[in-house]
Amino acid sequence: MKLRPLLFILAALLGAAAVRADEGMWLYSAPPRDQIKKKYGFDLTDAWLEHLMKSSVRFNSGGSGSFVSGDGLVITNHHVGLDALQKFSSTEKNYVHDGFYAKTAAEEIKCLDLELNVLQSIEDVTARVNAAIPPGMTGNDAALARRKIFAEIEKESREKTGFRSDVVTLYQGGAYHLYRYKKYTDVRLVFAPEQQAAFYGGDPDNFEYPRFDLDICIFRAYENDAPVKPVHFLKWSAAGAADGELTFVSGHPGNTSRLLTVAELEYTRDIQLPYTDSVLKRREVLLTAWSARSEENSRRAKDDLFGIQNSRKVRDGHLAALQDPVFYGAKVAAEAAFKKQLADRADGKDALAAFDRIAAAQKVLAGIAPRMRMIEGGAGFVSDSFSIARQLLRAGDERPKPNGERLREYSDARRDSFEQQLFSDKPIYTDLEIVMMSDALTFLVEQLGATDPLVQTVLAGKSPRARAAELITTTQVRDVAFRKKLYAGGAAAVAAAKDPMIEVARAIDAEGRALRKTGEGQSEIKQQAQAIIGKARFAIEGTGNYPDATFTLRLSYGPVLGYEENGQKIPAHTTIAGLYERSTAQHNKEPFDLPPRWIAKKTALNLSTPYNFVSTADIIGGNSGSPTVNQAGEFVGIIFDGNIQSLSGDFGYEEVQARALSVASAGILEALRKVYEVPALANELVKGHR
Amino acid sequence: MKLRPLLFILAALLGAAAVRADEGMWLYSAPPRDQIKKKYGFDLTDAWLEHLMKSSVRFNSGGSGSFVSGDGLVITNHHVGLDALQKFSSTEKNYVHDGFYAKTAAEEIKCLDLELNVLQSIEDVTARVNAAIPPGMTGNDAALARRKIFAEIEKESREKTGFRSDVVTLYQGGAYHLYRYKKYTDVRLVFAPEQQAAFYGGDPDNFEYPRFDLDICIFRAYENDAPVKPVHFLKWSAAGAADGELTFVSGHPGNTSRLLTVAELEYTRDIQLPYTDSVLKRREVLLTAWSARSEENSRRAKDDLFGIQNSRKVRDGHLAALQDPVFYGAKVAAEAAFKKQLADRADGKDALAAFDRIAAAQKVLAGIAPRMRMIEGGAGFVSDSFSIARQLLRAGDERPKPNGERLREYSDARRDSFEQQLFSDKPIYTDLEIVMMSDALTFLVEQLGATDPLVQTVLAGKSPRARAAELITTTQVRDVAFRKKLYAGGAAAVAAAKDPMIEVARAIDAEGRALRKTGEGQSEIKQQAQAIIGKARFAIEGTGNYPDATFTLRLSYGPVLGYEENGQKIPAHTTIAGLYERSTAQHNKEPFDLPPRWIAKKTALNLSTPYNFVSTADIIGGNSGSPTVNQAGEFVGIIFDGNIQSLSGDFGYEEVQARALSVASAGILEALRKVYEVPALANELVKGHR
Repeated sequence: MKLRPLLFILAALLGAAAVRADEGMWLYSAPPRDQIKKKYGFDLTDAWLEHLMKSSVRFNSGGSGSFVSGDGLVITNHHVGLDALQKFSSTEKNYVHDGFYAKTAAEEIKCLDLELNVLQSIEDVTARVNAAIPPGMTGNDAALARRKIFAEIEKESREKTGFRSDVVTLYQGGAYHLYRYKKYTDVRLVFAPEQQAAFYGGDPDNFEYPRFDLDICIFRAYENDAPVKPVHFLKWSAAGAADGELTFVSGHPGNTSRLLTVAELEYTRDIQLPYTDSVLKRREVLLTAWSARSEENSRRAKDDLFGIQNSRKVRDGHLAALQDPVFYGAKVAAEAAFKKQLADRADGKDALAAFDRIAAAQKVLAGIAPRMRMIEGGAGFVSDSFSIARQLLRAGDERPKPNGERLREYSDARRDSFEQQLFSDKPIYTDLEIVMMSDALTFLVEQLGATDPLVQTVLAGKSPRARAAELITTTQVRDVAFRKKLYAGGAAAVAAAKDPMIEVARAIDAEGRALRKTGEGQSEIKQQAQAIIGKARFAIEGTGNYPDATFTLRLSYGPVLGYEENGQKIPAHTTIAGLYERSTAQHNKEPFDLPPRWIAKKTALNLSTPYNFVSTADIIGGNSGSPTVNQAGEFVGIIFDGNIQSLSGDFGYEEVQARALSVASAGILEALRKVYEVPALANELVKGHR
Repeated sequence: MKLRPLLFILAALLGAAAVRADEGMWLYSAPPRDQIKKKYGFDLTDAWLEHLMKSSVRFNSGGSGSFVSGDGLVITNHHVGLDALQKFSSTEKNYVHDGFYAKTAAEEIKCLDLELNVLQSIEDVTARVNAAIPPGMTGNDAALARRKIFAEIEKESREKTGFRSDVVTLYQGGAYHLYRYKKYTDVRLVFAPEQQAAFYGGDPDNFEYPRFDLDICIFRAYENDAPVKPVHFLKWSAAGAADGELTFVSGHPGNTSRLLTVAELEYTRDIQLPYTDSVLKRREVLLTAWSARSEENSRRAKDDLFGIQNSRKVRDGHLAALQDPVFYGAKVAAEAAFKKQLADRADGKDALAAFDRIAAAQKVLAGIAPRMRMIEGGAGFVSDSFSIARQLLRAGDERPKPNGERLREYSDARRDSFEQQLFSDKPIYTDLEIVMMSDALTFLVEQLGATDPLVQTVLAGKSPRARAAELITTTQVRDVAFRKKLYAGGAAAVAAAKDPMIEVARAIDAEGRALRKTGEGQSEIKQQAQAIIGKARFAIEGTGNYPDATFTLRLSYGPVLGYEENGQKIPAHTTIAGLYERSTAQHNKEPFDLPPRWIAKKTALNLSTPYNFVSTADIIGGNSGSPTVNQAGEFVGIIFDGNIQSLSGDFGYEEVQARALSVASAGILEALRKVYEVPALANELVKGHR
């Protein structure tokens, strides 16, 4: 029996009909033709695939997109384009807040450092890579040999084809594929709505559904100062997709961890996630309470707080997935089935042993986790001042060493970005630093115990609050000139400064390094074992299954489909009317306030126009901005988020409640025409050219 | 050497001069004459004490106050009067929001169930109580004998004097005093400001300083339908207290735990507080995030959320105190010194052994804590639905038992209030119930482990979220008629109903009861041991030290004094100008918005009038509304809060940063005259009569 993906087993456990679920982030070189044919009666032809592949665009800033006109228009999410928007916004021209539209080609603004890639071909280079690594070679030597052959293949391809060429490691090292991309570096902004329309509902609605977001941003790709005329671009479907209609998503999922062993999942579920979750929640309360005390506090903590809230939601979603006996049980059953297959094969012994090595390493990691997080992880010292102090200390100690013997972040290769960041004069607020570090030291005492010698050394006989205040107010590390002086002077200058925060970093440095050494050793053991398992899995399954996500182009699929939550039916589509209803119900209060333009244009709109919708397609971070297409290969929407249940996607696919969220093509057109009154742009989308 | 209170040792550790700190909640029958004479050169005369004692008022709803006019005016905090205010507010007449003023005697509103007590005398009845308990009698028998003699003494006193008479257990049973009170039950509301003026800054400023709160509420006591003419009432000081001036606080601190043993403090610091704190923070995040999703959510979660935020601040304050090496070290040193005294005495052996019994019991309690909290404590099931389900299940099982054998809450004595609460039709929101219980079940899995048999039984193969949704949506316990039916029908009816939530309560009932039995057994051991230690301590110290707080009248003292925080000097006084500045800095946004009357009257005010101030007096919850008086015995302010550092007060006194917060007498007058324009009331306060 061939090992089937997770959901097959899940379906079996659920007693569902043996129809394959809509699982998978499939390689374009090994698409799920059979499954789709069988379940939906649809043929994935080569021409259909090539057209979608070459219409799909990778945003190297970390997202996906697609060509949507023969004159080079590329659509992605507002939150993917945000980085570019921020870079040419200023106090006077706040494009993030106000939105943007280039009425003429001349008004289109060139992005500073945006690179788009369009996949042209995939070539299997597994044999050539493997041949370059002598049998028996392992660890660092094998890694070096691999890096060398990658560089050789990439260079050769680039010179031959002129395309950007990347060798991609798939199936945990089971296969190596060469991906060739057409590259665009002249990318210009055409249209962006107000962030408040794009990210309507803000953090409270993040990862939730129903939603009402116009999360789009439209660029135009140029070559030789003229718009690109792509052969392949997606035809715009003005009607969009109906409930139940089969759709496809073509994009670049960033990464997944679907092949973690049960030993690793258990650690993640029982130790790592509860810990991370509780840390995030204590910090969220800390910053929320502090923010409530004044507007200035709120402004200072805002970015940190949003990051924490976002992470907390993700962690809660991960924990919910792993605590679900059905989901977790399927992972356990899948591993057991795979191990059985291995046991039946002559060459399966190595892989079975690798499972045991991972479990043993995980145990060691669990043992050192409490001190590791606090000391080397820095959770007991959270503050920019402490981070800088430790960097100064370690830079002094590491820089004289040979490059290969240094801690990773002090290598020559990272030196420029390390220095740029160390000497950054971004504002650091003394009051916020004290608040953060007081809490971190309190947490340190909780976690390691008041009688722990390291804790006592750090506190120096003071309370966490008093000690944090003392350290933060007396350290000089927030002075950039001081940092530069110490960095230039090396270890001797650092020691001579006797800076109290640096001395705290020094006091915990020996244990921190020892913990890290143990941790990295065990992680290396795990990584090597995973590669062995990956190869064994590939030997059994080949490309009959999809590999973990690698920020390379993948095809997902599934119908437009609502779901049930807490006994309530959640319809697949929302409409523009829903946006106004939500705003009214919240008295138009932030973050549910409508941009003025939306208030003014309400009566002009067809309120029953579909706005957002969900499908069962298997997506993850990196898929943001992916086109959702119908069987005709037409653009029916754009992926912008997953619901909270889809956060399980890191570990495995779930089809009962997990959903991919798209902005509907019809809603986009309606907004462009009636709210933003940009008929030329709307027409270009519909006609496919200017 | 006599054992000195904590601060004496603290001062020694700090190398401070051996001048006694302003510690103590002293008995009026054993006031700190020597300390005050020595440090401040002030004589506490009998007449001075009697005047202050008889001017002090206890609010039996849980606070303090004082007579401030010869025509029966009693001043307390707004938050002490709040309960009464709410009881006669309605949608049309929202006195909490709008404030209240009775222009004439006829307009004064009689409170529904408010009782005021004024202490008249204290009598030591220790010998008589002890004589009533035969030597060797312990446990329940001793408790019964004690209750009997208490009742006898109280009845005799009441009949003889006509006063309310309470025997109070002091010094952990080292002494028994008879407190006689004059009782007032006809209490009428005269004046209340808007809650927004009284509790300005809301939760963000709660326990913080500087502050700008007019936390006052003025009543008038009546007898025979005429205002009381008290012989003793406080003269109003229009000027108030100056910086550095010695002041006194006369009020009713609720309870303190200053005699916990080090074994108990260690448990509190290392296990109990970190746990409680993390639970409160996870619930705060849960409810805050849920509230942010809609105004209706916010309304539904508001009360719970405020309670959680308040508790979280208190717990953080407790933890900060116990994690302070100086504070905690003083506790350890004090216990060591006391044990040394015991070792030197022939009769000290019993008490020393009692310390060991407490440590042993604490160890057992620590061992069962994780399952205890989740199962019997209910932290794994948080929801009104679960609480009701368990009450129905247990009522069915407990009611047929003899009264003495039942779980405490099912005793005949508590039956009325139990039924009133069980049959309450207060709104329970299904959506909030699901949110709360999902999180609780998630926490249950985290704490007990996914493979725990009880966890697996509870989840029944579903995820925490799915199971919570299923249980909450299918249980019938939110239907009051259903509850009444099952309660009336007893265990058989409960079993026959097969209600899924009740069945969950049943599934965990055996272990819950077993844990509770162990816990109560160990607590009883601790209590008996504490009584032995308390007696030994009293034998050594007598009334030369103050007993733990017991919601009886106590005298505290200390100068008006600012403090340092994070290297910043916090002045002792704020002014009315500061209120306007804070509002302006926060753009008058909730909870920093000013009531309209305050905005309108700004120009009429003398903005430099002192508004709030801090002193070093030793206070705790229950002291709210206590008068702060000067050496002349005049009213200079009213206690309304402590700063965050004063939360250490549960465990011991701290004088470096802990401060008691008062509303200044001058600020009150200025507000009454210029903002509320109630000259008659202001004049009555100043003149001491109408």
